Amino acid sequence: MSKNLEVARLLDFYGMLLTDKQRETVEYYYNDDLSLGEIAENLNISRQGVRDSIKRSEAILFEAEEKLGLVRKETLLRESLAEIRRNIDIIDEKNMRIYRSKTVNESIRLILKELEKLSEI
Amino acid sequence: MSKNLEVARLLDFYGMLLTDKQRETVEYYYNDDLSLGEIAENLNISRQGVRDSIKRSEAILFEAEEKLGLVRKETLLRESLAEIRRNIDIIDEKNMRIYRSKTVNESIRLILKELEKLSEI
Repeated sequence: MSKNLEVARLLDFYGMLLTDKQRETVEYYYNDDLSLGEIAENLNISRQGVRDSIKRSEAILFEAEEKLGLVRKETLLRESLAEIRRNIDIIDEKNMRIYRSKTVNESIRLILKELEKLSEI
Repeated sequence: MSKNLEVARLLDFYGMLLTDKQRETVEYYYNDDLSLGEIAENLNISRQGVRDSIKRSEAILFEAEEKLGLVRKETLLRESLAEIRRNIDIIDEKNMRIYRSKTVNESIRLILKELEKLSEI
């Protein structure tokens, strides 16, 4: 059981699928970087209980990603939005500097609005 | 318990969170439109058992949507992609007809490629 960024990321997406107690335990471990002993003391359960809870929670998180793939999809979405943004900026620069079309300008504005919305979902 | 499209849509997203037996029961009911009695006969369990399994499965599906909001996000994504596509087409038409810029044309091509990718996630 090694602490890693991947579990912290899975926790962002699938933390709500854990029980309150499981989530509390895993957040202590992965987000707050407490030791098993410290968590055991905080929650007043055995060190082995903490270990079991974390192992069970990790299994739930990895299974959810395997089934729903939200972390993978989120990465693809961010990459695509960045590539679209990069190309919109190229068109925008060309339009501002040379063509000065109000129609193109308005369409760019509307696309940027949608990219903004998508960056928040 | 009314049959509706919403549950069928939730099933597309969160069906993998159900056990095989739960999913089988709910798919018979919502996708294949079998009656409780027909499902009971197929699975060799009681009519009440079928009803309980469907109610439990529905609760899991609605809770997953409340927690993860994938159906809502999917709808937002589709709407945004359509709006971006609509505006790219406007820019493309203007460019093809008037400006004939290779740079703009190439950026449009790259954006359409990303929109294609995003339509599949």
